Amino acid sequence: MAIQDYKEVSKHKLQANAALIPKEWVLAAEYLKNVNAESDLNVLDVPSKCGILSEKELELTGNYDATALLEKIAGKEVSSYEVVLAFCKRAAIAQQLTNCLTEIMFEEALIRAKQCDEYLAKNGKVMGPLHGLPISLKDSFNVKGYQTTIGFVSFASHPPAVINSVLVEILIKNGMVCYCKSNLPQSMMSADSDNNLFGRTLNPNKLSLTAGGSTGGEGALIKMRGSVLGIGTDIAGSVRIPALCDGIFGFKPTVGRIPFAGKVPPGRLGSPGQIAPVIGPEGHSVRDMELFMRVVIDAEPWELDEGTIAIPWRRLQPITRKLRLGLILEDAKRPLHPPMLRTMKAAAKELEASGHTIVPMDDKIPSIWESSILAWKYFLLDPKKTPLKHIKAAEEPIVKSLHACFYDELKGWEPSLDELWDMNVQRRKTMKVYHDIIVQNQLDGFIMPPYQATAQPHDLYGVPPYTVIPNLLDYPAASIPYLEANKGLDKEFIRDGIAYEPPYHADAVEGAPSGIQVVGKPMKDEELIQIMSIVADVLKAKS
Amino acid sequence: MAIQDYKEVSKHKLQANAALIPKEWVLAAEYLKNVNAESDLNVLDVPSKCGILSEKELELTGNYDATALLEKIAGKEVSSYEVVLAFCKRAAIAQQLTNCLTEIMFEEALIRAKQCDEYLAKNGKVMGPLHGLPISLKDSFNVKGYQTTIGFVSFASHPPAVINSVLVEILIKNGMVCYCKSNLPQSMMSADSDNNLFGRTLNPNKLSLTAGGSTGGEGALIKMRGSVLGIGTDIAGSVRIPALCDGIFGFKPTVGRIPFAGKVPPGRLGSPGQIAPVIGPEGHSVRDMELFMRVVIDAEPWELDEGTIAIPWRRLQPITRKLRLGLILEDAKRPLHPPMLRTMKAAAKELEASGHTIVPMDDKIPSIWESSILAWKYFLLDPKKTPLKHIKAAEEPIVKSLHACFYDELKGWEPSLDELWDMNVQRRKTMKVYHDIIVQNQLDGFIMPPYQATAQPHDLYGVPPYTVIPNLLDYPAASIPYLEANKGLDKEFIRDGIAYEPPYHADAVEGAPSGIQVVGKPMKDEELIQIMSIVADVLKAKS
Repeated sequence: MAIQDYKEVSKHKLQANAALIPKEWVLAAEYLKNVNAESDLNVLDVPSKCGILSEKELELTGNYDATALLEKIAGKEVSSYEVVLAFCKRAAIAQQLTNCLTEIMFEEALIRAKQCDEYLAKNGKVMGPLHGLPISLKDSFNVKGYQTTIGFVSFASHPPAVINSVLVEILIKNGMVCYCKSNLPQSMMSADSDNNLFGRTLNPNKLSLTAGGSTGGEGALIKMRGSVLGIGTDIAGSVRIPALCDGIFGFKPTVGRIPFAGKVPPGRLGSPGQIAPVIGPEGHSVRDMELFMRVVIDAEPWELDEGTIAIPWRRLQPITRKLRLGLILEDAKRPLHPPMLRTMKAAAKELEASGHTIVPMDDKIPSIWESSILAWKYFLLDPKKTPLKHIKAAEEPIVKSLHACFYDELKGWEPSLDELWDMNVQRRKTMKVYHDIIVQNQLDGFIMPPYQATAQPHDLYGVPPYTVIPNLLDYPAASIPYLEANKGLDKEFIRDGIAYEPPYHADAVEGAPSGIQVVGKPMKDEELIQIMSIVADVLKAKS
Repeated sequence: MAIQDYKEVSKHKLQANAALIPKEWVLAAEYLKNVNAESDLNVLDVPSKCGILSEKELELTGNYDATALLEKIAGKEVSSYEVVLAFCKRAAIAQQLTNCLTEIMFEEALIRAKQCDEYLAKNGKVMGPLHGLPISLKDSFNVKGYQTTIGFVSFASHPPAVINSVLVEILIKNGMVCYCKSNLPQSMMSADSDNNLFGRTLNPNKLSLTAGGSTGGEGALIKMRGSVLGIGTDIAGSVRIPALCDGIFGFKPTVGRIPFAGKVPPGRLGSPGQIAPVIGPEGHSVRDMELFMRVVIDAEPWELDEGTIAIPWRRLQPITRKLRLGLILEDAKRPLHPPMLRTMKAAAKELEASGHTIVPMDDKIPSIWESSILAWKYFLLDPKKTPLKHIKAAEEPIVKSLHACFYDELKGWEPSLDELWDMNVQRRKTMKVYHDIIVQNQLDGFIMPPYQATAQPHDLYGVPPYTVIPNLLDYPAASIPYLEANKGLDKEFIRDGIAYEPPYHADAVEGAPSGIQVVGKPMKDEELIQIMSIVADVLKAKS
């Protein structure tokens, strides 16, 4: 079989996508003239300026979280059709500005929205708790009738999916309207959502910055309010990194609580590694994170996916006491850039000022850097190097950010069964240290940076040591948006003799959203949502 | 370091053990004269005949389950001292007849029992829900002050344990009295509890038969009512096989529900295999299985062991409807011997006669034989072959039953990282088949034989394909004692042209206990206990 030139394949796919955006939703040239990966433009205000959305559509997309919209739809205050139409328009705008989408399903979404409205009118009740709500999905989910290329050019020849991923099936049964899938990095293993099929997703806060990865299409789309709730996956930070970079909420549950079956993997199935990918939501409020978790687990997903743990979503009494939270500040190998150092210090200060207890952990834990190298080894266990095969199959080049997302320490490292035993022992020891700190200090969880900095200029993000730790431990973890890079305020957090990696350029990141990571105890996803809510309230966190 | 002759080491250990049995508890020669591994003797009546136990002691050890004894102790109807003394005596008798013990702690147990009694007298309340109850433990648990040799001669030079296993710690906190540890096979990987340090445990129902393994010491001890509740471990059937062989109840929970930390492993830590060992109880009633699970999980063991899943023990409403149970009858590679075929058919018939629905599964599942070979590969993943090193370290021979417990198909098989990926995919496919059968047929669980036969003459048991399946799937599973080998009744279940493996000899197994296996859904341990209870009631199962 002759290999089509990968640029031709990409061009064809992008043209087909562009054709799915109605002419009336195409932005005027003035809004597009500085749209490129080198531009410092903030495009968040384009939807409200461009005239494509009505006042009501701007209100529906701009002012509510998913929980509020669901109430409005269920209460017949607004129709699903109106809501879906508004989000399709705004997603189309986001796409033109940030290149965040992969599969566009607007036409079918509007048909489905009408069906939802008819159902409600006829039956006097909703289809389910997600009735009529548009939810966006990372490209790796299978949606019947649409391709799942996950950014591999070689996958562009794959036929459309004939089944839905188990999660998609559950969301649809509960009333979701599918309307788009979103962009991700080649192989899903970098923090820049860039690939040779769809190109690069830009950060709507500042186009010259990464939107994050691997669920970066969602990050950009949600920040643009082209989506009110999006679903991603996370094995090293892929939900939390875009949440940080774009300035929204992200939640990574414990492994096995959300059904993972029926997705398209970037690598080989059957990994003997001790870190498994998990599905998690990105959105505008903590209660929307809870909404997603509750609805999916209430649906008893273990009946559809043998890999899902059969335990219910627990309804908890609200926490009324003050929290005890550990604080991990930084690892010497990746010192915090001034904006992140200011963010973390401010967060700890605010929490303490609100009466919560902060327990420093930096001197109690093993090297984050070493732990993250251990984690990375688990991602390199395939002797067949399957993702590389997918890349080579189309003779496409490896994207730049993928080269950057690698540990020098692992150059030439080859996995072996014998070492895998030792790695598991090392992981278990690491787990025990964290576990014992939590128990001995009676912690509810801990806070830590999601990264040593804010979003970086494209292809500079590198490895994610701070987000991969909760994956290594299998602790649930969340990203909370908080503050932003501000060179005036950050100045006093510049430390002499520190080698920032990547280099710190105050002007390059000016205005970039910042945020913190909140980490909970394993299987205590319910509690982490509560903690996240308390912390977000204290910090007045806003997406 | 010179290696001491292994027989000398063993002799020394056995002499030290014998010295811990008070002279008054030593059986008269008449009871010991036919005690050997070739004898067809049933020794279950020796405790009541030998005159070492008083009438009350016979009643206390012979007539109650753990739940009933706990009520009596808590209600001050009987003291912990009386109960512990009675069980020490009876365990000493069991030891002399079946060689079931490894570490003897009678003296300390009686001191602890007194402390329990004093505590109750002084405080007017119990230490915990296991107040004053003697519980026996498989040798692989660490108990402070006692060796954990797990039958390796080379471990006989190890100092006594300086910490308790996490489970032991929890049980003690809840009031348990530790009084003995019990025998197991060399390397824990055979169904004959035989090793070169302690020798072989015999089956009290018929000394010429295996007591089962690897928790075989418990099996013999409990059947002798030298223990009312014993704790074992199970990675391929090690709790359920002795339960079948000796005729008692055994329960293997889902992985991660009972804390496994702080045990002495027979192999290398850090296995990348997909089958993990679990701790489970053996005893005389279903409610005692629930007692153990409830007390341990109520103690929030995840606070002490980072490997334990942090989910509570759920209190369920009783099941009042009829059950829907799958039925796996046999695999062509290991056809059921007449006693087991009769047992399974009778169980299915009784359950149907009681209104429960039985759904045949034999034509729906992948080959049990092939699945069990896959499971066995997971046990052979250590390139360093650590258990063999432990054996070689003392220049002791490999016991006969260990040679027998091996798949010819795996002769010369060496593990590789690449194949491990494929094994995981194969396991996942197998899991999906079982999962889908259960969902599509709305099954509560399924029943299957625990083995193709009853207990066999020593060293003939071979591989355990029927018990290892729930380990491969990580489904909870239980053994229920039911019927016994009876050549008159079994005759009509002999099938022509069947090659029984091991060979069927009606006289050799005459009188051996039989039983069935009940398998539940993953994480639904609570439900499986209920199902077990319903099934045991229908079958009038008695330990």
